[in-house]
Amino acid sequence: MWDNYPEIKEELAAFEEYLAEKLSSRNEFLQTACRSAVLSGGKRLRPAFTIITAMSGNYRREVVFPAAASVEILHTATLIHDDIIDCAKTRRGQPTLAEKHSINLAVYTGDYLLAKSLRLLVETGLEPERLDVVARAVSMLCEGEVDQYLGKYEFASVHVYLKRIMRKTGILFSAASLLGAKAGDLDETSLKLFGRFGMSFGTAFQIKDDILDIESNERIEGKPVINDLKEGIVTLPVIYAVRNNPGLRGEIEEYFDGKKDVRQILKKVTSSGGQKDSHVLKKKYVERCKKYLSQLPVSIATRAMTEVIEWL
Amino acid sequence: MWDNYPEIKEELAAFEEYLAEKLSSRNEFLQTACRSAVLSGGKRLRPAFTIITAMSGNYRREVVFPAAASVEILHTATLIHDDIIDCAKTRRGQPTLAEKHSINLAVYTGDYLLAKSLRLLVETGLEPERLDVVARAVSMLCEGEVDQYLGKYEFASVHVYLKRIMRKTGILFSAASLLGAKAGDLDETSLKLFGRFGMSFGTAFQIKDDILDIESNERIEGKPVINDLKEGIVTLPVIYAVRNNPGLRGEIEEYFDGKKDVRQILKKVTSSGGQKDSHVLKKKYVERCKKYLSQLPVSIATRAMTEVIEWL
Repeated sequence: MWDNYPEIKEELAAFEEYLAEKLSSRNEFLQTACRSAVLSGGKRLRPAFTIITAMSGNYRREVVFPAAASVEILHTATLIHDDIIDCAKTRRGQPTLAEKHSINLAVYTGDYLLAKSLRLLVETGLEPERLDVVARAVSMLCEGEVDQYLGKYEFASVHVYLKRIMRKTGILFSAASLLGAKAGDLDETSLKLFGRFGMSFGTAFQIKDDILDIESNERIEGKPVINDLKEGIVTLPVIYAVRNNPGLRGEIEEYFDGKKDVRQILKKVTSSGGQKDSHVLKKKYVERCKKYLSQLPVSIATRAMTEVIEWL
Repeated sequence: MWDNYPEIKEELAAFEEYLAEKLSSRNEFLQTACRSAVLSGGKRLRPAFTIITAMSGNYRREVVFPAAASVEILHTATLIHDDIIDCAKTRRGQPTLAEKHSINLAVYTGDYLLAKSLRLLVETGLEPERLDVVARAVSMLCEGEVDQYLGKYEFASVHVYLKRIMRKTGILFSAASLLGAKAGDLDETSLKLFGRFGMSFGTAFQIKDDILDIESNERIEGKPVINDLKEGIVTLPVIYAVRNNPGLRGEIEEYFDGKKDVRQILKKVTSSGGQKDSHVLKKKYVERCKKYLSQLPVSIATRAMTEVIEWL
């Protein structure tokens, strides 16, 4: 990614060093845990959004880096707490904190990273009103996760699904872009457009993830594992499949009761057009991303973002 | 409490209404969970520290109330996460969130309250540098809790114990006072003195709690329950008892291995002067509180705080 933009690649490499430096703690356990959680990979898409958006304005590394680090560290904190909730055993190929140590230490490591994220925000020197975007994002993220948890084993409408993923995923991409726009001193119109771009990107990103969650498992040898469905989480491809083929709902409910084989369900989700229709909706959000970018003055940010959209 | 200070009582009553108003959410579950967690009682000592400290300066409710609410909501968030870790079944006579619903929802409700706490800080309109005190407090709180968890079944020195409880409990009282001093525009010397007062108060408060944890259970009929020791947490009375009576250590280790009766241990902690010596150390911190207050100009804050110390 960013191969056509050496100035972005260079800035992201410098950011990586900055991030590692910022993860020091007097507490040895917390330092090791935080470093291994934050620095163990990940695409760094969210901080890249902050950095690249700021590059289209008055770019000051001393404001942008803490803002971008705040976003990435917040993202990692939510991953750690998500892993507790999902009882996940691995993340990015490594055992999760809860698995390696205990749920207890995972809860506090997440909280510690949340606090670190807040302290980095303060370091940006931006006005408090400009920082509320991040706190608001955490609130909405929690709302999205709680909604998803309470809605397990239920068949939400497409509308409810979209509302949920916008909170769960969209809001942090939106906050990342907005914060970059604020760090780069962009005008109010650009702020709004970048914020909306981030939200649409995050929505398309989550739909892609939900399609992959079903498709990738199709290819695993032997019995396929549908992670979300196994957890009772009904995502877009399943919602569409049931809309196209109402009889499927009863079969999935039987699967929830432990009566059906997941392979049969999966085949029917595909044959009922679940993935196909999801791709169409994803495309709608990709088009929205393009629309917002086209309304912004051309800059390195709009050019690079146009390429990222293609990756979706 | 505060019976001799009608103006404080009045302000705290108004604060209680403010707090309830601030706990609204579009998400019904989160609103109910947050309200029941925050509004189900508690002494409101920490927000009282913020409010009363600010009363000794330029008191502006619109700055002080969000600051005080931020502190109390942060405290509640940590209680919710603590209850997960301690596998606590009840808190303030009510079933805990984790017990009533699930660990998952408890994790997110805590995170949601942390975010709410941050948003209230922004509402104070104070400069970002002034807000860092709260984020720093969360970091140190997590360090204290992680230390305590990793130090289970170990006999810490008094020094290590004190460092731990200052982080676990002292720091939030210190932050509450400091934030009140900042909200009330006090001078730098007063800021420092109130901050130190809060730290010493919190330290004495935790020692009192640790003494009670052993003493109160002494009085329960039948088999006594030592909560901390049961969890492998070695607190001050036990540390002192072992220092006075080194042979006790082996017996406690046998208890950890499930071999000894807790009643025998308890009797020996008391007869070895565990509680007595703890009271002496607590008194040292109470004296420090008095010293800091005596260095401050006399105000409603210093007078009311002098009474609160007596309660310790």
